[in-house]
Amino acid sequence: MARRKKLYEGKAKILYEGTEPGTIVQYFKDDATAFNAEKKDVIDGKGVLNNRLSEFFMTGLTQLGIPNHFIKRLNMREQLVRAVEIVPLEIIVRNVAAGSMAKRLGLEEGTPLPRPIVEFSYKDDSLGDPLVPEEYIAAFGWASQQEMDEIVSMALRVNDYLSGVMYGVGIKLVDFKIEMGRVYEGDFPRLIVADEISPDSCRLWDMETGQKLDKDVFRRDLGNLADAYTEVARRLGVMPSNVTHTPTKPTLIN
Amino acid sequence: MARRKKLYEGKAKILYEGTEPGTIVQYFKDDATAFNAEKKDVIDGKGVLNNRLSEFFMTGLTQLGIPNHFIKRLNMREQLVRAVEIVPLEIIVRNVAAGSMAKRLGLEEGTPLPRPIVEFSYKDDSLGDPLVPEEYIAAFGWASQQEMDEIVSMALRVNDYLSGVMYGVGIKLVDFKIEMGRVYEGDFPRLIVADEISPDSCRLWDMETGQKLDKDVFRRDLGNLADAYTEVARRLGVMPSNVTHTPTKPTLIN
Ligand SMILES: Nc1ncnc2c1ncn2[C@@H]1O[C@H](COP(=O)(O)OP(=O)(O)OP(=O)(O)O)[C@@H](O)[C@H]1O
Ligand SMILES: Nc1ncnc2c1ncn2[C@@H]1O[C@H](COP(=O)(O)OP(=O)(O)OP(=O)(O)O)[C@@H](O)[C@H]1O
Ligand SMILES: [Mg+2]
Ligand SMILES: [Mg+2]
Repeated sequence: MARRKKLYEGKAKILYEGTEPGTIVQYFKDDATAFNAEKKDVIDGKGVLNNRLSEFFMTGLTQLGIPNHFIKRLNMREQLVRAVEIVPLEIIVRNVAAGSMAKRLGLEEGTPLPRPIVEFSYKDDSLGDPLVPEEYIAAFGWASQQEMDEIVSMALRVNDYLSGVMYGVGIKLVDFKIEMGRVYEGDFPRLIVADEISPDSCRLWDMETGQKLDKDVFRRDLGNLADAYTEVARRLGVMPSNVTHTPTKPTLIN
Repeated sequence: MARRKKLYEGKAKILYEGTEPGTIVQYFKDDATAFNAEKKDVIDGKGVLNNRLSEFFMTGLTQLGIPNHFIKRLNMREQLVRAVEIVPLEIIVRNVAAGSMAKRLGLEEGTPLPRPIVEFSYKDDSLGDPLVPEEYIAAFGWASQQEMDEIVSMALRVNDYLSGVMYGVGIKLVDFKIEMGRVYEGDFPRLIVADEISPDSCRLWDMETGQKLDKDVFRRDLGNLADAYTEVARRLGVMPSNVTHTPTKPTLIN
């Protein structure tokens, strides 16, 4: 069988040409990177977990009518998605101060925010994905003002939904990052959620213990990353059959 | 100890004067009614479950910045809430056709809707809470047009959140009903979510088996209502210690 054409290899995923025009195959690698790839490792099973979890979250978005690129999962590590023209922004929604925001403002990590805040980084690895004021975005033509309105309202909808998903299984959604892209159908481009939604792109804290269940486990050397992601998958009933896990008791809230 | 003043006794709850001005105590009864109270029964434990579940859902709304009446749970059957001036509407959000909508439109129950739909019934038991066109609402002064915009957008936020909560534990949120009310602080009234959020006011279907986990179990004589509500509480980790339950294995999605 002829090997499919590789379109792009990123830090966490490889993109191949899809089976039909307008589609792409996303292959989820086990590679973990942090601090703009200064820190690297291979985490056995991470790609399998993120492939499943992104499928799970995107499917929930579809059921709510929030458009996204997911078409179907192909196998343990691959999913078929709609090809989009990526908007070169990391769209970040925060409910609680953590990470770069906590540092920038001198806030203690864990400080609840007065309301969910949407912020943007310009996607450019050579610049280290810098935070940008919203003014820059239309000025440099990365997205139109009309697209930005749409992006903010979709990002807040994703936050309401994903906060709910996590809340129901005893996890606080501290913050997350999504990407959006344009699909061309008819005369006007339409925006859909793309890339991935997984513990690689969220901060997830256990509501009882504060335990981190996201990529910070890797960034800060807090333990085994695959164990943390397996715990998230387990609570959500998303269990790749070939990933080793030790079922633990459900968390009780009294 | 002097007994508190009873303000109102409804079909499912009793309202007492609260401990401080502007507050009310909601007491959750075990009474179940359907078809405008033509069908009645007492379901052991229902009030305890709904008190806990409404606390759980309202607390999640608060964390997302969706304002609501919940202040704190007082005991197994009572919670302290902010007193509001109830908007005389049942605000219904539907994701899937069921119940009165399925009947009215001749749709099969379970037909997914093109997008979430918000509809309104006029709260009047003697009229049987009739469905009303949005036009009636401002015309009869039940809520202003500006309030209606706020009500619709809040109801859709609650839907995104609550759909997420249920999705994470393998339950489809088919539809739900909320009530909203006005609180007066400063010059303008502000709308907050009131009444309750519980399996009494939602349709909840298990995503794998289609099993009903809501008040339809009572309306349609499908089994033990308290067992159904206990299953919802169990999946969400909301476990009143004095309610008998048989822990079962978590649902796996493969
Ligand atoms: N549906 C899609 N169509 C086209 N490109 C996509 C789609 N979804 C995600 N992408 C892009 O595919 C790449 C995924 O690879 P990966 O996440 O490994 O990249 P990365 O190393 O994080 O680099 P980047 O900084 O570009 O995200 C990203 O560049 C992302 O923007
Ligand atoms: N925070 C609040 N402040 C004031 N009234 C409230 C508040 N929350 C709910 N209510 C009202 O309290 C009553 C709750 O009682 P219950 O649910 O048993 O009523 P019911 O029999 O369903 O009658 P109704 O048709 O009025 O809802 C409802 O009338 C509801 O509108
Ligand atoms: Mg990436
Ligand atoms: Mg009522």
